[in-house]
Amino acid sequence: MKASLKKIAGLIDQLIRTDNFPQTIKPDYLREAVIDYPVRGGKRLRPALMAWCCEAASGDPAATLHAAAAVEVFHNWTLVHDDIIDRDLTRRGAPTCHKALAAKLGEKFKLNAADAERAGADFAILAGDLQQAWASELLLKSVQDGVSTPIVAALLANMHKLADNELISGEALDVEFSLRPADTITIAEVERMIYLKTGALLRFAAESGAMIGSGDPDPAAPLTATLGRFASLAGMSFQLRDDFLGIFGATEFGKPIGSDLREGKATIILAETLKRANASDRAVMLGLLRRDAYSQADVEEARRIMIESGAAASVERRIADLGDECRTLLMTIPNGDGRRKLLEFNDYLAERTI
Amino acid sequence: MKASLKKIAGLIDQLIRTDNFPQTIKPDYLREAVIDYPVRGGKRLRPALMAWCCEAASGDPAATLHAAAAVEVFHNWTLVHDDIIDRDLTRRGAPTCHKALAAKLGEKFKLNAADAERAGADFAILAGDLQQAWASELLLKSVQDGVSTPIVAALLANMHKLADNELISGEALDVEFSLRPADTITIAEVERMIYLKTGALLRFAAESGAMIGSGDPDPAAPLTATLGRFASLAGMSFQLRDDFLGIFGATEFGKPIGSDLREGKATIILAETLKRANASDRAVMLGLLRRDAYSQADVEEARRIMIESGAAASVERRIADLGDECRTLLMTIPNGDGRRKLLEFNDYLAERTI
Repeated sequence: MKASLKKIAGLIDQLIRTDNFPQTIKPDYLREAVIDYPVRGGKRLRPALMAWCCEAASGDPAATLHAAAAVEVFHNWTLVHDDIIDRDLTRRGAPTCHKALAAKLGEKFKLNAADAERAGADFAILAGDLQQAWASELLLKSVQDGVSTPIVAALLANMHKLADNELISGEALDVEFSLRPADTITIAEVERMIYLKTGALLRFAAESGAMIGSGDPDPAAPLTATLGRFASLAGMSFQLRDDFLGIFGATEFGKPIGSDLREGKATIILAETLKRANASDRAVMLGLLRRDAYSQADVEEARRIMIESGAAASVERRIADLGDECRTLLMTIPNGDGRRKLLEFNDYLAERTI
Repeated sequence: MKASLKKIAGLIDQLIRTDNFPQTIKPDYLREAVIDYPVRGGKRLRPALMAWCCEAASGDPAATLHAAAAVEVFHNWTLVHDDIIDRDLTRRGAPTCHKALAAKLGEKFKLNAADAERAGADFAILAGDLQQAWASELLLKSVQDGVSTPIVAALLANMHKLADNELISGEALDVEFSLRPADTITIAEVERMIYLKTGALLRFAAESGAMIGSGDPDPAAPLTATLGRFASLAGMSFQLRDDFLGIFGATEFGKPIGSDLREGKATIILAETLKRANASDRAVMLGLLRRDAYSQADVEEARRIMIESGAAASVERRIADLGDECRTLLMTIPNGDGRRKLLEFNDYLAERTI
């Protein structure tokens, strides 16, 4: 699986770097912003998931090339707009899109700091808009990979349903949660948000791969539906693990430990803690949210409450259960290289520490 | 033409109100924001242009129904994001999308004014994102109007090229102009921006209509290219007229007279004035830009300089020339009801006072 992932990442990277869509974008700094996140790399899990699902549906994974690049660019536009909304400063170790633009524009047009920030956010909105269009354009270019027009039309319709409508609804719910007191947010609401925000795009990737592989444009076809269901559950597992590592991970984990607490991020582990903890720990936990700064002792206190309340164990159990459910689903599909990689991917999701 | 425009507006309005795409959007206030601008009405010139070009290409204008709704929703998402970027307060006599959301969210979540403003802008970004997806989805639904799959694929590719890539590049240039001193912006740059920001979407509407009408997916087919060229020029004429009325129009004109001066908006009439006026008037004109408030005397002074420098007359000449050029182009296409409506539309663009 790891070798396959690396190979797919290389192909996607090359396609994104050479695709002609961004070339006509003006001004130059907007074009550079559009290309920025997509070429920063990342694990390329979504393209790989699409290729493996194609293989699992007896297709040639090479036929997913443009569609896989599309899902990756799609993922990136949502990150650009999310980062504006969340006022994030860094992404994959470099300034976020709006911060990079703010610095560039501030220098180019001799703007004061406030005007530069504003201009950076304004152009980052447009950069994300262009990336959304770029994703659709890449999907349309799937015909160059031998994908039939009815399948391309089905992929596009599915993208608007899952990747746009559901995913953006999920992002909106996540933003709404940040406006509500943490103890009014139910576990069911957080689960729904996670499915929409993380699961829907993985499901789109999986269903697209299955449609391309099988040549059947119906997303309800049994194999396609099974792989879509697998991807939804895998997305839930991925996010639960991500949120768990956001508290219990090593400091080398992608984001600073405690940043979820600072943002008051709605996570299952937090919702479980608030539900399970005794009254005094519950009050302490609520007091640990949305502070300006966190000491190591604060993080340790949050960990203690999450462990003692049973929330940490319940999340780990849930991840294990999801892994089992995913494995059971995958065992119902035809045996072969595609299934083998998906099974390895499933193990990776449950076990990853970074 | 007026009766046809009214009929088309009614059909588009009904389709937008009943289309199923927005129905699954969560939370409710986001769904309402997505529907808000598209159902506010407006002239529906772009859908009408598409229908008339379809007719001019010997097609049934009813076949453009979903594609015409798509161009209208597309236009609206660009307005939503533009209004955030321009910090505009009203649109068609009601609060802009982000202002309406700010008021609604402030009340719902008991936010202070600054947090409500921020949340309004955040959700308005997502509302525009969803509208972009909705536009693509509507275009895809053209198959329900009997449009063939190759034509739908061509429409989508053309939308990404003209409506996304070019139009957003135009918006970006417009924002860039607001960051640069007014006297560094050339007439050629403003013309390019106007083509990209206004002409590209009208061109998309016209080419789409011609493709649907002719059944030929090639945007370079002679009739399609002619109608696209007509629409680009008509867009230029429309914007020149809009900018002219922004200074010389009656107070009933859509926006407050002088608002273009306050924003320091890059217009041909301003660029011509700065090029043609004598040194002292030029300095006065520059001093009249980007003020907080404008008296009637300020507006009169701007009008005087624009008239005395010859800029006003040059813009009126340019509008007349564009009208002639458009008429000449239209006389090369087959005679019929479509051409007649397009000729009337051309006259309307040159003469409108509101």
